[in-house]
Amino acid sequence: MAKEIERKFLVAGDGWRRGGHSSMRLRQAYLASTDAAAIRVRIVDDRDAFLTIKSAGKGMSRDEFEYSIPVADAEAMLALRVGEMIEKIRHAIPCADGDLTVDEFGGGNEGLVIAEIELPDEACDPALPDWIGAEVTDDRRFYNASLSARPFSAWAPADRAAILGSGG
Amino acid sequence: MAKEIERKFLVAGDGWRRGGHSSMRLRQAYLASTDAAAIRVRIVDDRDAFLTIKSAGKGMSRDEFEYSIPVADAEAMLALRVGEMIEKIRHAIPCADGDLTVDEFGGGNEGLVIAEIELPDEACDPALPDWIGAEVTDDRRFYNASLSARPFSAWAPADRAAILGSGG
Repeated sequence: MAKEIERKFLVAGDGWRRGGHSSMRLRQAYLASTDAAAIRVRIVDDRDAFLTIKSAGKGMSRDEFEYSIPVADAEAMLALRVGEMIEKIRHAIPCADGDLTVDEFGGGNEGLVIAEIELPDEACDPALPDWIGAEVTDDRRFYNASLSARPFSAWAPADRAAILGSGG
Repeated sequence: MAKEIERKFLVAGDGWRRGGHSSMRLRQAYLASTDAAAIRVRIVDDRDAFLTIKSAGKGMSRDEFEYSIPVADAEAMLALRVGEMIEKIRHAIPCADGDLTVDEFGGGNEGLVIAEIELPDEACDPALPDWIGAEVTDDRRFYNASLSARPFSAWAPADRAAILGSGG
């Protein structure tokens, strides 16, 4: 079991594209999402697959149990999902204070770009690049489970515009 | 992925206790149960643990994905369950035509005794011992997910009596 502490931000502009970084393609879906936990299947670059149980604790800190599984199992399990499949390109951005990733969503969440930083503890206050926008760690609309149940393309126009205006 | 074909029966009398058989203690709980799948954590004899995804297809044949996980993970995941934990002693009964098990439930399902036979294909018509009672394969009340959401002890007295009368 890993304790996961992460903060989420909107992304302001394209500054994060400067400089080299590695990218991977993620396809993922939820088998279920309850008050206590979310159960996720993820396929990375069609090559690796993982089954992950995340506790549904609010805020930065959540328990996470992750297991490597055969890709063929994961492909078959996608058919058992609730909500939409989530597709995104995840970019790993070099950062002094922690693992910083930028997720560019596709499919029903096209247009959404979210940065995540993983921290060693909740007290850590990292120096963030200038392209980091508003924090959305506690905004449930940006939970991946929410984005699969109600993708960005289905949001009200005013809500979409607010995000695209403050974000990218 | 395994294709699981099994039939379930009530148990009439104690005849199955004659003769030697091995037994193990199961503790299990559902992390979630949707229209498409049930996600189960199971701990066997406090020594082995498994995370299992079963598709929710009706009847005998269901897809099943099972992964061995650390017991400590499984113990922590029990706290993320929906419904009640299911406790049972599973007895493996020697049988010519397939793997026959008898589950003696405890906890909230105390009193319930269910036999299951796993078959090579749906056409197989096994010779069954005389202590096998009414078939309940398609009776959703006996799905383990149902027994965790609504344990036998919570059934209406008439329903309980009907089962105990025809079963044991």
